[in-house]
Amino acid sequence: MNVQFSKPPVPTAFEHDEFDDHENVLFARDRKSGLTAIIAVHDTTLGPALGGCRIWPYPSKAEALTDALRLSRGMTYKNALAGLDLGGGKAVIIADPRQDKTPELMKAFGTHVERLSGTYITAEDVGVSPEDMEAVAEKTRHVRGTRATGLGDPSPFTALGVFEGLKAAASHVFGSSDLTGKRVSVQGLGHVGFDLCKHLHEAGASLIVSDIHEPAVQRAVSCFDATAVKPEDAHRVDADIFAPCALGGVLNAQTVPEIGAKIVAGASNNQLQTTEDGVALKKRGILYAPDYAINAGGVISIALATPGGGEQAVRAKTLAIAETMSAIFSRAEEANRPPEQIADEIAEERLNRRP
Amino acid sequence: MNVQFSKPPVPTAFEHDEFDDHENVLFARDRKSGLTAIIAVHDTTLGPALGGCRIWPYPSKAEALTDALRLSRGMTYKNALAGLDLGGGKAVIIADPRQDKTPELMKAFGTHVERLSGTYITAEDVGVSPEDMEAVAEKTRHVRGTRATGLGDPSPFTALGVFEGLKAAASHVFGSSDLTGKRVSVQGLGHVGFDLCKHLHEAGASLIVSDIHEPAVQRAVSCFDATAVKPEDAHRVDADIFAPCALGGVLNAQTVPEIGAKIVAGASNNQLQTTEDGVALKKRGILYAPDYAINAGGVISIALATPGGGEQAVRAKTLAIAETMSAIFSRAEEANRPPEQIADEIAEERLNRRP
Repeated sequence: MNVQFSKPPVPTAFEHDEFDDHENVLFARDRKSGLTAIIAVHDTTLGPALGGCRIWPYPSKAEALTDALRLSRGMTYKNALAGLDLGGGKAVIIADPRQDKTPELMKAFGTHVERLSGTYITAEDVGVSPEDMEAVAEKTRHVRGTRATGLGDPSPFTALGVFEGLKAAASHVFGSSDLTGKRVSVQGLGHVGFDLCKHLHEAGASLIVSDIHEPAVQRAVSCFDATAVKPEDAHRVDADIFAPCALGGVLNAQTVPEIGAKIVAGASNNQLQTTEDGVALKKRGILYAPDYAINAGGVISIALATPGGGEQAVRAKTLAIAETMSAIFSRAEEANRPPEQIADEIAEERLNRRP
Repeated sequence: MNVQFSKPPVPTAFEHDEFDDHENVLFARDRKSGLTAIIAVHDTTLGPALGGCRIWPYPSKAEALTDALRLSRGMTYKNALAGLDLGGGKAVIIADPRQDKTPELMKAFGTHVERLSGTYITAEDVGVSPEDMEAVAEKTRHVRGTRATGLGDPSPFTALGVFEGLKAAASHVFGSSDLTGKRVSVQGLGHVGFDLCKHLHEAGASLIVSDIHEPAVQRAVSCFDATAVKPEDAHRVDADIFAPCALGGVLNAQTVPEIGAKIVAGASNNQLQTTEDGVALKKRGILYAPDYAINAGGVISIALATPGGGEQAVRAKTLAIAETMSAIFSRAEEANRPPEQIADEIAEERLNRRP
């Protein structure tokens, strides 16, 4: 075999802390275009692994691998809980999206996606534009959210799903999904946050808004008669519902004890900094809507859009987020456990994948 | 991005010592069957990456990765130099072939090969039986050397190619490819070594044979009127040509100064322990036939066999090994450089892949 080592063996992807029996971890390289990418396929029990492609100037390839492993696993759970017949995957391209992106780079990525013969289906994520995805689509059919296959910006569906999930939470806590007069603090007024405000305003809620981008705040104040606060006060204000729609990690050891609302239900990814923060929310009697369950409208719109349509199926599956959230909340109450643990459990039951 | 590290980043496959811009390194896992495998696709410039699948109880996954990276690169060079329109790949399954092999394991491997949609074509290697490959073939078309696609045991073609290359070396050194009366020390009398002895005997050569397996030696002595020596003396004996057909690493700092022949031309893989040993051979005025060039008959038979035939094409390409070897020897002499460096160069020219 001629195996010789001058140094002790280093861990491979198989031994990575975030490795969770991922079916495939593909290191992909193309010298001509300079592509260096990792595609992780976590689980295809329910179908091909759908998940976005992220372009990011990772300080190390190890960090890119960590992201690919963690995020692909997250997509398995998200797609399973959203009732999609899709597995979980994720791709990361190690590059600076402001400097390194070329059509050749994106096409080389598309070639590697095509090599996986549909095991992985790609889509837009951080650092990737619709134009980039058109270049990818020149080399592979296994891409969603392009002009040919998509409904365009998924944000309206993400916002709609969060709105429905938020009403389910209100129903569980206040006995009614009627939001008339309910005070909701929306942190972050990007596409999703702003659309969520619109739904809430139309439903009669009273809005407290915040964003680091001042014009966005002014627009929400004037459109929805909202009250502006500083972003760092969004969780503290006296409100019925706190809806984080900006950064991840917003629920942490510092913020949880300060939260003024009875419900946390928003669109951000990775809201809980640690699992302990979820336990702390429960101890404080605050109902937390698991982020990956409530914000699934976007992936639903990417998954179910068809060439020239699919909007009806997308709307129906997005509205069904309310039922999923209700089921999670009821079971969490019965079991006296945090809702995010129940969400994981329901996903694992569907996957027949218990830890 | 929420990337957080508690430990310093560890190197990934991209930073591995043996990583040479491999197009794909695929970590594959199947929980049900217990499959843990690595498929490395080094270069597909010339065509799909053909290379065997090895099953081995590697002490660590890092060692399996090292093997996959190194061997897949070797296949790129071998296939290029053999004039095949095929790239280089290799698969390793981390398992004990005596205990862990099941049809399910092999089928799971086949599923992962199929996922790569023909980018990688698999075949038998260490630890894999023809029956195992039939199980693989249930899940993928991208397999060679099965009953449906192969000419059976590739050893006769390996032996034929070595015989042709050895004659080219004789022609270069002695001015004639006529082997009548030439003394050839054949080390190792497995399928390939024994077949080589047969060719040499028919060509009128005088044989010196050795093997750790005594009955094989007796058979060669009686069939070919050969002289038996101990395996550890095979390189030392007074011969015109030394033909290593057993272990790798047989040309090393200890053996090279002791070699009694003017030519080293045999079937073993990885004959040179280090590049310095090749330089040392040249300094001693011994002509070395680069192993991966001369022993390509086996992969040629696997590559060019077709359902129900292909033997003519296989023979023609195998006989052409003589021309390749002559070209290597001439150019090495002109450039005053070791032949194995010239072999690499010719392969790289065909690949348009210069270091």
